[in-house]
Amino acid sequence: MNAHTVALREDHVELLDQRLLPGEVRYLRLETGEEVAGAIEAMAVRGAPAIGVTAAMGVAIELERAPDRDLGTSLERVCERLARTRPTAVNLVWALERMRRSLLPRIAALEPPTEIRSKARALALEIQAEDIAICRELGDVGAELLPEHARVLTHCNAGALATAGYGTALGVIRSAMTRGRIKQVLACETRPFLQGARLTAWELVQERIPVTLITDSMAGSLMRRGEIDAVVVGADRIAANGDVANKIGTYTHAVVARHHGIPFYVAAPLSTVDLGTPTGDWIPIEYRDPEEVVTFAGQRIAPPGVEALHPAFDVTPADLVTAIITEGGVLRPPFGPALARCKAREPASGGGRSDR
Amino acid sequence: MNAHTVALREDHVELLDQRLLPGEVRYLRLETGEEVAGAIEAMAVRGAPAIGVTAAMGVAIELERAPDRDLGTSLERVCERLARTRPTAVNLVWALERMRRSLLPRIAALEPPTEIRSKARALALEIQAEDIAICRELGDVGAELLPEHARVLTHCNAGALATAGYGTALGVIRSAMTRGRIKQVLACETRPFLQGARLTAWELVQERIPVTLITDSMAGSLMRRGEIDAVVVGADRIAANGDVANKIGTYTHAVVARHHGIPFYVAAPLSTVDLGTPTGDWIPIEYRDPEEVVTFAGQRIAPPGVEALHPAFDVTPADLVTAIITEGGVLRPPFGPALARCKAREPASGGGRSDR
Repeated sequence: MNAHTVALREDHVELLDQRLLPGEVRYLRLETGEEVAGAIEAMAVRGAPAIGVTAAMGVAIELERAPDRDLGTSLERVCERLARTRPTAVNLVWALERMRRSLLPRIAALEPPTEIRSKARALALEIQAEDIAICRELGDVGAELLPEHARVLTHCNAGALATAGYGTALGVIRSAMTRGRIKQVLACETRPFLQGARLTAWELVQERIPVTLITDSMAGSLMRRGEIDAVVVGADRIAANGDVANKIGTYTHAVVARHHGIPFYVAAPLSTVDLGTPTGDWIPIEYRDPEEVVTFAGQRIAPPGVEALHPAFDVTPADLVTAIITEGGVLRPPFGPALARCKAREPASGGGRSDR
Repeated sequence: MNAHTVALREDHVELLDQRLLPGEVRYLRLETGEEVAGAIEAMAVRGAPAIGVTAAMGVAIELERAPDRDLGTSLERVCERLARTRPTAVNLVWALERMRRSLLPRIAALEPPTEIRSKARALALEIQAEDIAICRELGDVGAELLPEHARVLTHCNAGALATAGYGTALGVIRSAMTRGRIKQVLACETRPFLQGARLTAWELVQERIPVTLITDSMAGSLMRRGEIDAVVVGADRIAANGDVANKIGTYTHAVVARHHGIPFYVAAPLSTVDLGTPTGDWIPIEYRDPEEVVTFAGQRIAPPGVEALHPAFDVTPADLVTAIITEGGVLRPPFGPALARCKAREPASGGGRSDR
């Protein structure tokens, strides 16, 4: 891909404005934690892992600006602010917790401010580098699940743009492509924000991975006609029992895939797994502004006076998921014990749940 | 509704240009059969029954212009041209056949040209008036199927705009509304053409029927949360065994409704039933220009070089349909015998199948 999702510069976070894609590649220059929070809320960046990395960089940038004596309160304040931006994706809280846990003891121990700032910067970059490595790992693991000449359906964008690079669902597809296993990717456009049309198609066209764009409503009919071999999606949060929150529309694909006996795979780093959320019923679903449904590119598509709903995510129950693809391997049902085992081995989690 | 779908004037067909809705109410003035055919192809009018009525008027207008000695060849030519406009909806062929069968013997019998023209006009108006009466009948019949305080999902526009007036699926909803049974209509926006956002929402807002607009991808999640009591859709063609072709996305709603035990109703006049089509596999599915998928509200949403698919319809197998609501009553499975019985009683069909 000819663009990076996010980078930590000397005095700002450089963030690709994904709202302008595919028409324009433009970077935002974000100089404060507040600016980073605003960009996440406005969906200049989206995708659970990418939001986590961006937030960690937002913490580092905020600490660069904070007076020496205020590092502790600045850290708490910026983490609290960034955590409030979007409720569903758990990687955000996971990344912020990692920053807090590493930095607070140093601040309490009165380590030199320059060292604390440099540690913050190093940790944000570490989270970023890890995310790319993890995506490559789970991509390689997941690629083995796909048949030869696979026609793969994906929803939304769980690609390089949704992560620090490479992608989760698209990571699986990229790895499968290098093994010669991909015949065609069916990309759902993903209303209302059109991440599939704007972002997934853009990534795949650049890498010459054969991609065909469809509306979300066409997937079921293609499954019925035997034209889809597997569904691979990302996740915004995976509950302890394996229930999966992901972009609105995912649940429908899972039900129809089950109806047709088509495998339904979820690809996500373990940082997306939240053992503190027992089931999908506990996952907060973000409701966004209905204006995003009734308008497009500033143009109104529905009559005045009509109400609209905009839940940004839905929950797919674990029993519709064939396997969860993580850097810890391919997990099969029952997911509860498998997820607990993997999370216990996850180095970054400190072996426990993220206490939010 | 503050607008009529189509009207037969002295020397032209006056057709509401539905592509401009909800922003603008503008009528096309169509003076030849060819102009009517072009308007149907370009989807200025859509909806199976509305297309049938418009085509019948197109025949009448063409005969007004044809020289006296050419009435027979003009009739054949304009019917053949209009039949080619869109392949899936069967009401089109049904209406054209009705015109041909009534007029050809008169032409062959050398009846006076003025009388033939006046018969053509009268028959087109009769088809229009019948369509409204049929919609009211099936609306009243179907309304009884809905529970009190019903939250009803509908897809695309099977409303007054899709018919000569009143509507099929929206006819059921209108009738249920007058009985105080409707709590909420969930209208799927219906990509790529947005008939739900632009047309269904527009009709319902005008009549103060409570309507909430959702993207097509949200319906499954609402069903899972118990927020939908019934699905009611129209049809473009119903095969002899009860398989239903309707707007792309319908099949997915049917599968997810079945998964949740939610009744899935199809509302259509008997002219939509084609006993000459044994099953859904025989229904020709129209593939439209993929440009209609990669652009949204006139703006390009996908990167250059991406391919797209645009099947305009899908097929829902009979076993996912709870009941078919027609002017002949509510039909229950097995649909084959029930449809054959009703069609045999249908006055306009001459008791037989439409021989196309």
